Amino acid sequence: MKVTVLTGGVGGAKLVLGLLRVLPAADVTAIVNTGDDFRHLGLHVSPDIDTLLYTLSGKANREQGWGRADESWSFLETLRDLGGPDWFQLGDRDLALHVLRTTRLANGDGLDAITADLAVRFGIGATILPMANALVATRLETDEGLLDFQHYFVARRCVPQVSRIRFDGADTALPAPGVLAAIASADAVVIAPSNPFLSIDPLLAVPGIRSALALTKAPVVAVSPIIAGRAVKGPTAKLMEELGIRLANASIAAHYADFIDGLVINQGDDAPDGIAIAQTATLMRDDDDKARVAQAALDLATSLSCQ
Amino acid sequence: MKVTVLTGGVGGAKLVLGLLRVLPAADVTAIVNTGDDFRHLGLHVSPDIDTLLYTLSGKANREQGWGRADESWSFLETLRDLGGPDWFQLGDRDLALHVLRTTRLANGDGLDAITADLAVRFGIGATILPMANALVATRLETDEGLLDFQHYFVARRCVPQVSRIRFDGADTALPAPGVLAAIASADAVVIAPSNPFLSIDPLLAVPGIRSALALTKAPVVAVSPIIAGRAVKGPTAKLMEELGIRLANASIAAHYADFIDGLVINQGDDAPDGIAIAQTATLMRDDDDKARVAQAALDLATSLSCQ
Repeated sequence: MKVTVLTGGVGGAKLVLGLLRVLPAADVTAIVNTGDDFRHLGLHVSPDIDTLLYTLSGKANREQGWGRADESWSFLETLRDLGGPDWFQLGDRDLALHVLRTTRLANGDGLDAITADLAVRFGIGATILPMANALVATRLETDEGLLDFQHYFVARRCVPQVSRIRFDGADTALPAPGVLAAIASADAVVIAPSNPFLSIDPLLAVPGIRSALALTKAPVVAVSPIIAGRAVKGPTAKLMEELGIRLANASIAAHYADFIDGLVINQGDDAPDGIAIAQTATLMRDDDDKARVAQAALDLATSLSCQ
Repeated sequence: MKVTVLTGGVGGAKLVLGLLRVLPAADVTAIVNTGDDFRHLGLHVSPDIDTLLYTLSGKANREQGWGRADESWSFLETLRDLGGPDWFQLGDRDLALHVLRTTRLANGDGLDAITADLAVRFGIGATILPMANALVATRLETDEGLLDFQHYFVARRCVPQVSRIRFDGADTALPAPGVLAAIASADAVVIAPSNPFLSIDPLLAVPGIRSALALTKAPVVAVSPIIAGRAVKGPTAKLMEELGIRLANASIAAHYADFIDGLVINQGDDAPDGIAIAQTATLMRDDDDKARVAQAALDLATSLSCQ
């Protein structure tokens, strides 16, 4: 069963890890949000790709929720001493990834080829594709003006009130090589429980991806990021309120209505009408949780493809 | 007594530290070789400026002879794991300097302004000037072909036979702002015991510097890098042999003949004719040695300016 998963951020990475516990790695393709990518200190940082690389290779810092487990901070300490910007946490080991990626981009390599090579280096058997090779920048219109994603998310800790989310550059971006084929040829497509507005919408804004999802014969199932009327973490709940969207599974189903066939929701939560539903405890604390949620998504997809 | 010193590398940095032991910091200006500067992994590295910053701020690794004392190596370790180039040793703290400098250069700041700010951050009271803001690249014609300096020096450990040394870009480079004035207005100019061919010649290749040395009314004294017929360290001896130059103080005097008025040589070594000589033990092991050699150079200069 070949599965393609659309993902961004920590929650998404957990689900992809779950998929790799229940499927052969060669059958899993992850298409990753790069709307969070940005240039910092001249370095190209791809936060969601890195989170996935670290999570799938067992190098993620689970307590912290970002970065590497075996990190050291001499660089940032010295940068601070020298008066450099220290608002974005760059660990010494993390930095190696950014420097290497930036060097290769400067040499003309595509983000897709670089990401594929990094995945191999990290011993990851799954295919990891950036949504696009071109830069697509998630920007937020807020009560503090137009903010770059990392400025909003890290420097301002999601405090500003968001009125609109933009994906600058998306309209002229092409899906990275392999992205549309991975959707079209999959036996099932899974939308990870990532923030729909910040992590999945950038993917959908790249021309061709949304219609590929709508057109694929394979079942498309989303895992809802809402648990017991709350978002697990991050700015999802605050953001939905600011955008005037009710914090409910029905809102997630409506948001993805034009292409999903099923929705995995948390056990016991309100199920929206008009869509196939699977229920399981969707909070992913340990690897067994991740495998169980992934299996629930696959089972739902299988049931839908048999219809 | 305002003193300007031309320097490059570890030996030169030791002498500058000695000058700061015997003079008020505000009276010392160091003009530094940037012919060793290169781009590595997209980062602008200025080895001789960094050696001087680390040495003068007490952060240099004295055992190792390069880099910082309090260094960590997580970045390089990870870079190696990821298949990146690890031939050039980039410590985590050292990296902060390179990233900051590169970012500021990309923003249009000059190497002179960046270096001045870094010196302040490192608590250094002396003025540190790069020889030029434009890139001048020391390259070596060898039996292995034309090699960039760092490739020859670090990657190939000075093994290739050198037939000629080039300073690409020097003919169109301008001395950095303040360089010519620092020579013209000094009460004494000192040429540090750096490698004359690799560390001082790049400075002399920048149009205007050699003639400023020849024209200044102040005495110009060099400290010979040769001790008891040997070079203290580095490729000086091997290089001089390959270039057909006798390893003797007379060769140093001849090399600088058009602008030096005096030469400090090691106690008891052969003194060349036709030039004012001062003798002291020139091997600089500890800070007292450095102060003594610096004082010998200043005393020689003073005696010459009284004539």
